[in-house]
This record gives sequence, structure tokens and C-alpha cells, in this order.
Amino acid sequence: MTNLKTEILARAAADLEAIEQALRSNLSTYLDLVEKVAGHILFSGGKRFRPLLMVLSARLCGYNGNYDKTFSVIFEYLHAATLLHDDLVDEAAMRRGKPVANSIYGNAAAVLVGDFLLARSLSIAAATDKIEVIKSIGAITEDMSQGEIHQLISKGNIHLAEKEYLEVIRRKTAALIQGACHTGALIAEAPPPKASALAAFGLNLGMAFQMADDLLDYLADTKILGKEVGADLREGKMTLPLIHALQAAPADDRQKMENIICNKDATAQDFINLIPMLERYGGIDYTNQMAARYVTEAKNQLAVFQESETKKLLLMLADFALMRND
Amino acid sequence: MTNLKTEILARAAADLEAIEQALRSNLSTYLDLVEKVAGHILFSGGKRFRPLLMVLSARLCGYNGNYDKTFSVIFEYLHAATLLHDDLVDEAAMRRGKPVANSIYGNAAAVLVGDFLLARSLSIAAATDKIEVIKSIGAITEDMSQGEIHQLISKGNIHLAEKEYLEVIRRKTAALIQGACHTGALIAEAPPPKASALAAFGLNLGMAFQMADDLLDYLADTKILGKEVGADLREGKMTLPLIHALQAAPADDRQKMENIICNKDATAQDFINLIPMLERYGGIDYTNQMAARYVTEAKNQLAVFQESETKKLLLMLADFALMRND
Repeated sequence: MTNLKTEILARAAADLEAIEQALRSNLSTYLDLVEKVAGHILFSGGKRFRPLLMVLSARLCGYNGNYDKTFSVIFEYLHAATLLHDDLVDEAAMRRGKPVANSIYGNAAAVLVGDFLLARSLSIAAATDKIEVIKSIGAITEDMSQGEIHQLISKGNIHLAEKEYLEVIRRKTAALIQGACHTGALIAEAPPPKASALAAFGLNLGMAFQMADDLLDYLADTKILGKEVGADLREGKMTLPLIHALQAAPADDRQKMENIICNKDATAQDFINLIPMLERYGGIDYTNQMAARYVTEAKNQLAVFQESETKKLLLMLADFALMRND
Repeated sequence: MTNLKTEILARAAADLEAIEQALRSNLSTYLDLVEKVAGHILFSGGKRFRPLLMVLSARLCGYNGNYDKTFSVIFEYLHAATLLHDDLVDEAAMRRGKPVANSIYGNAAAVLVGDFLLARSLSIAAATDKIEVIKSIGAITEDMSQGEIHQLISKGNIHLAEKEYLEVIRRKTAALIQGACHTGALIAEAPPPKASALAAFGLNLGMAFQMADDLLDYLADTKILGKEVGADLREGKMTLPLIHALQAAPADDRQKMENIICNKDATAQDFINLIPMLERYGGIDYTNQMAARYVTEAKNQLAVFQESETKKLLLMLADFALMRND
């Protein structure tokens, strides 16, 4: 475990425990199967990054009420709903070192429990009694589904432009993290400039977070990742390391890369051969630099807030986004 | 076409046209695939029963604003989202005489576009700026997903009790129709007794509506139904005609029925042989009577309203629920 991770976990221990409790006590289902399927995805080592960001954002804006942990589960339930549906959409086999829920409980249960978690998120959002929060959750949920659909129709498109990739990850990943931070500010009834700063913090952090995730698919080993490496590529998902390298490579190497990407029978060795080309043509470095730039921009947004332990922890979480991810 | 249907369509023509327009103009997607998949399910002959109920309920409570048609699409989008996911869950082949969306566009698109329609419903609900409406939509969406899950885990349970069946259909079907009528009253800022009466009207109507649908699965022919008859039974869905007949039959015939239900290789002829037993042991009559009783109770709820053309049309719609269904 990195020192940064150890320190974050120590500083956030009490909040994380309270979030864990809230995640268990707000499911509100009368059906064992929902508990099992939702539990499979909710209690399998997620780091509660999104609810923690909401709780800390609220605190940074002076919130001292009792409902922040309850409201924070919106962002973990929405995330879990998306994972349940995505694993089915992507025909994934593993997540966090375990078989995906739909392989254990069936596609039907995964679809319907995902729907239930979406619905629970909405009900908890409605319980805030804040129209602004509710509208934001609606818009985030629309963004997420459209981002996923956009990604689906872009699969195998070797001409996917960087701009379009950025739009996809903004919707499918960054919108939710932006929403978590923004909602924290809204719950605290923060003045608009502070709420906007936290929204921008979350948006930039979310972009970096997804880029780091996309890099991991090429660089991590299966044990750390909890799923097979190269999965994105096998599914035809075009992510920034590849998009950049394809653009930067001379015609002959670009052709070689395209042959691997488009070959439905490509072997594990083919994928391994691709990685040095991603490195040679700057795909890895470029993605790392872009992610770092987004993190810097995220951190800059917090300049409007005075120094505090909460701010320090948010800045550490921003740095951590580059290092590891769920 | 029945006379009742002809008369309803004539009386509701202007509203139905405005609802149709609202369904098209509120999708708000930037993706062709979403338009196609959502359009496949939204514009394939649905009767707009739910939005029409909302619009009429609002009018019955004196609403004369401009947003009723827009808000009414919530109930058709939620319905369409459920159909997209259910057809995948049930592994259905046909709906309304067309192949199901997931068989044309794939499971991934059906799941994600369903999610998008859920999200759009929420956003449109949020646009009412009425917390009570939003909370109700959240609760309905939870009910619907839990009703579907309850139905899923009850598949093949030949001991399913009538009480449990009633709970399943209340959640999966009646809650949405109840919500449509109730929301109409809320939009009109109706006094609580009128809002409650309309909610109860919708709940009872929804129960009857689902029972009529369950009967159709045994009694209609494929051409009228737009999907194969006996589909519920083949999927192991235990509905009221069967539940009642099983309970009423003597041991030997009950055993025969159970053998057909539990036989995974049962033929079309086996299902056809089952129908006379459903009739003999009162399953068909009992379901018809129950549905009629719910319709009567629905209509009684409207006693608190003065006579009007709108009330007359709502009463006609209640009678129509027994006759045909989508």
C-alpha cells in the first residue's frame, strides 16, 4: 500500500465507516435477492471514493448536519447500478477479483437490481428536498447512460478522435464525481462560487480518474487489477493511450496497430506486443500528462477555500486519483 | 375495433395527438442509437394509456396549464424502460407484433437505453418542481423494479399464493398507473381527498389491467396479442388464472397441471390442454370477476367528482381496461 493511500485511509477512517453503515441501512428492500446482488457489487472492496468526496465537499462548505452520509450513498448506488449494467454490456468476466454479478445471478437479476439501485438513488435524492440536487442527479444519470451508449457505438472505431473520447469519459465517469462534489456543496448551502469550484474540482478529478483507469488496463497486472488486462482493447474500447499512439505513429506502425485492434482473433501476445508501440508513440506518457494536468486543474479549483484538514484530504484524494482506481 | 374503443379514441383524439408530440420532443438525446432503440419501443403502437390517464386526472382536478402533456411522458418513458428491460429479462421474442428491441439492437443497447429512459423520466419529474411528484416517481420506480424481481424469483413456484401474486402486480403494474393518476391530481394542486381518490382509482385500475393482461396470455390468439400465447406459462410466470385453478382442482387434476407447468419440454399442445382445466376449475372466471371488481372499485373512487366529459372518459377507460391492454 502506498504511503498516500495509508494516510488517506487513516484520515478518512471515521467517515468511511459511517458511509459503510449508511450503504447498508439505506438499501430498503424486502427481497433477499436484491440484498445479495446489490451486496455483491456494493460490498466487494469499493473504495467509496464518490460518497467520501461528497461528505468532504459538504464539510469544506461548513455542513454540520446529520444527513450527509445518507445522501452520499446516492453516488455509490448510482455507481454500483452502472457497474451491474456495464458488466453485462461489456460481457466482462471479473471485477475486483470476483466473477461479475450477472455470471452468478443471471442477466435478469443484474438488470433489475441495477434498476432498483437507480431508483433508490433517485428516492434518496428526493429526500434531500432540494430541487437543485434532484435535477442534478437526473442530469447525471442521463449523462452516464448516454456516455455508456456513446462508448458502445464507438467500439472498434479506430478513428475515434480524442475530443470524442473526452466527451464520452466526461459523461460516463466525470459527471458522477462532479455531481458528488457539487451535491456536497448544495447540501451545505454553499454560495454559488464555492459550489461551482467544487463542481469543477470533481469534473477535473473525474476526467483524471478515468484516464488513470484506462492506463491501468494496459499497465497493471491482473492480480492488482482484479480483472484481466487488455479487456478494453479486446472489447474494442478506444481509450486515450491508443488514440494518441495511433495518431502519432507513422503509417507502417499505425497499420500494424490497427491490424491488432481489428483482428477478432488477436492473441494475448498480440496485445502484449502492442504496449511497446503505445509507449514508443507517446500514448502512455501523453495520457499520464493529461491526467496530471486535470488533477492540477482540480486542485487549483480549491484555491477559493481556506486551508483546513478537510481541504488537505481532498487534495490528497486528487493526487490519489492518478495512482489507483476502482 | 370495439365500439368502446372507437368512442374513447374519438373523445381523446386531441390529447393523444398532443401526447404523441410530447413523447417525440422530450427525448432530448444527441445519439441516433438512443432515438432508434427508444423509438422502437415508444412508437410501435402503444396506446398511451398511462399519459392519457395523467392528463385526464389533471383536467378532472381543474388543471388548465401547458405542462400536462410534457409531464405525462414520464409515465410512458418509465413504461417503455421497463418493457426494454423486461423483454431481455424474459427472453421474449416478440412484442406488439415486432421482434423485441434487444433482438435487433443487442442486449447492451436495450439495457442502456432503458437506463436513459429511466433517467429522462426522473429529469422530467424534477422539472415539475414538486417534491411530492418527484418522491412519488422515485417510489414507483423502486416498486416496479422490486415487483419485477419478485416475479423473477417466483418463476416456477407452483405454490405461489394469490396474496403474493397481488403484491407482485401491485408493484410491477398498478403502482405506475396509480402514480399517473395521482400525479395528474398533484400537478393540478388538487385537495388531498381528490388526489387520494384519483390515486385509488389508478391503483384499482392497474390491478384490473394486469389481470386482464394475464388472462390474454391464455385466451388471445397470437395475431391479436402481437406475441405468442402461453408465454407467461413457458417462462414459469404464475398468474391468477393458474394460481386459482391449481388451488381449486382436486389432487389428480392438480397433479396433471403441475406436471405441465414443471415440464421444461412441454409442447404447445400441452399448454392448449391446460386451458380447459383453467376453465373447469374456475381460474378464468375467477380472474375475470376479480378484475371486474377492481374496475368497479376504481369507478366508485370517482364519486367525489362532479359529472363531466372528462369523468365520463375516465370511466370509459376503466371499463376498457377489462377488454384490451398493451
